[in-house]
Amino acid sequence: MELKDMARVRRTIASVAPVDRTWGNEVAALLDAKTKPRGSLGRLEWVACRVAAIRRTSAPQVGRKAVLVMCGDHGVAAEGVSAYPQAVTAQMVANFASGGAAINVLARAAGAEVVVVDVGVAVPVADRSASVQACRVRPGTRSITQGAAMTAEETARALCVGVAQAEALIERGVELLALGEMGIGNTTSASAITSAFLGVDPAGVTGHGTGLDEAGWRRKVDAIRHALLVNRPRQDDAFDVLSKLGGFELAGLCGAALAAAARGVPVLLDGFISSVAAWCAVRMCETVGGYLLASHRSVETGHTRVLRELGLEPLLDLQLRLGEGTGAALAMPLVDAALAILRDMATFTDAGVSDSGA
Amino acid sequence: MELKDMARVRRTIASVAPVDRTWGNEVAALLDAKTKPRGSLGRLEWVACRVAAIRRTSAPQVGRKAVLVMCGDHGVAAEGVSAYPQAVTAQMVANFASGGAAINVLARAAGAEVVVVDVGVAVPVADRSASVQACRVRPGTRSITQGAAMTAEETARALCVGVAQAEALIERGVELLALGEMGIGNTTSASAITSAFLGVDPAGVTGHGTGLDEAGWRRKVDAIRHALLVNRPRQDDAFDVLSKLGGFELAGLCGAALAAAARGVPVLLDGFISSVAAWCAVRMCETVGGYLLASHRSVETGHTRVLRELGLEPLLDLQLRLGEGTGAALAMPLVDAALAILRDMATFTDAGVSDSGA
Repeated sequence: MELKDMARVRRTIASVAPVDRTWGNEVAALLDAKTKPRGSLGRLEWVACRVAAIRRTSAPQVGRKAVLVMCGDHGVAAEGVSAYPQAVTAQMVANFASGGAAINVLARAAGAEVVVVDVGVAVPVADRSASVQACRVRPGTRSITQGAAMTAEETARALCVGVAQAEALIERGVELLALGEMGIGNTTSASAITSAFLGVDPAGVTGHGTGLDEAGWRRKVDAIRHALLVNRPRQDDAFDVLSKLGGFELAGLCGAALAAAARGVPVLLDGFISSVAAWCAVRMCETVGGYLLASHRSVETGHTRVLRELGLEPLLDLQLRLGEGTGAALAMPLVDAALAILRDMATFTDAGVSDSGA
Repeated sequence: MELKDMARVRRTIASVAPVDRTWGNEVAALLDAKTKPRGSLGRLEWVACRVAAIRRTSAPQVGRKAVLVMCGDHGVAAEGVSAYPQAVTAQMVANFASGGAAINVLARAAGAEVVVVDVGVAVPVADRSASVQACRVRPGTRSITQGAAMTAEETARALCVGVAQAEALIERGVELLALGEMGIGNTTSASAITSAFLGVDPAGVTGHGTGLDEAGWRRKVDAIRHALLVNRPRQDDAFDVLSKLGGFELAGLCGAALAAAARGVPVLLDGFISSVAAWCAVRMCETVGGYLLASHRSVETGHTRVLRELGLEPLLDLQLRLGEGTGAALAMPLVDAALAILRDMATFTDAGVSDSGA
């Protein structure tokens, strides 16, 4: 065990303070004075209160935003659990680097920067492109059907990659951190973690990923069942579950969620993978839960279950199943809108409008 | 009957051409070549195809956007069917004019202009503010519990207000028209129209508006039942239903939908009221249906039913119940995002990414 990495993770966890609901309540009262029926902006009002509690102010801003796209490969991809070959991870990382992927387009539309991190892609793209952060722990995980995906040392190192990347962005002024990912095979990993945490058979929490047919889905469920038998992860030990069934990008995102919470920055989840990574962070440190915002409900089967475990309702339900952080980027204008309402709307008194109190 | 107004409405209806699905299919093929699993951007892809079919191009843009906020009062408001007094309509119109309402804030965030039209507010705000279009048909409708809300002449005039306002915006380059409204009592009117079109009892399609208690809800349902008995609207005659049970702002929005369809411009619905107004337009001219996009699913009971009748799935489900066009403004960035994906994303060939065909 590299003591240095694990110590940094522990320090990060130790510095997570609970969100301050006083500010959330103050913002709720401010919103009730605006010229609209109480609560009539629904979930948008919840967002404003949540961000206020996280930022510890009644006038929160999220001027600078980033999507942290963690990338890694999965040994289990060789077992026919994805509609795409493993080579696509590296190809897509190159696509992110040249700005042509969906996340580039959607982040640009949302005014957010994209930071691409190679935490362990099989083929090292990072070396070929300056716009990819090279933080490679290993060229892909071992297959979860044959043992632990990562050693404890590798897991700690990947967690630290996430901590460091998030801290660097926050140092540069980022006030809203979205979690995105790329890794062929990573819905298999996320479903395996979900099964382990809940103690349920994988069939109920495993979906069709980026487009598996029925035979592929059965192979995927069988691979996860096998992985659970081989690894016997300890249900109540998130680090153990993450090491054995996870992946470099999942651990990186988990570390990023921990660091953002420690620095008081809201974390915007994307779909199933990023939600599972954040769930790992919450299992390591329950207080992190207060820092999370859900962007969308993925069509991936396990996602609704994970959101329920996190106590989150998503803002969008667009039938997305792409990952990369795309759903999070699409939700950013809604976060901006919620804070603009709080900042700019007139009160009943300002506008001379009769308040029924309804 | 003012022949001139009715003739203009008829001319508008006659010039609505069907949307051209050829362009929608072409865009679907273009999206399948982008570096993402086929269909993985879900409803966003549907939006791109829909707008392409409406604009008759494979590279549609909606650069300039507007929210048309039609305002009018309802005689039935005197019968305790709303949580707010009728005076609030005029107060809110003044609030729109000074830029402090939710729709001003959200339209600004979406880069859309707001056009406020007084089609028949009880107190004439239009005369006091240059930023409100004065197109007053009458100072509020008659109560639907005592007879027809509007005469045929008044209905035709209000339809023409909508036609003229939409045409003026489109002349000025607006490529996406959102429908918003303000009018204390107008959910009563919209529920009455919904009951009449469907031939069902109002209880199933009547909600709590901006915040009615249970006693208020029962009064509202009773008022609608009474209005249906008194007026006996002809279920298959949308003009008759709209005249007897509608309102000036509803007729204005109906006319705007007709004119936008006639000019090949997509119409972005807001919540229950604007959807019912567009449904009136579709009942007058079925072809208009192809020009509609649903922004959000309101908590108002009847909205889901109306969207189903229109064959639309909304983009947002944020538990909104405010109106004004707020849900439509919130959905605008998603329309922009859908078109940005179509315009800017790399193809599998461009990016050298393996396409599984999944």
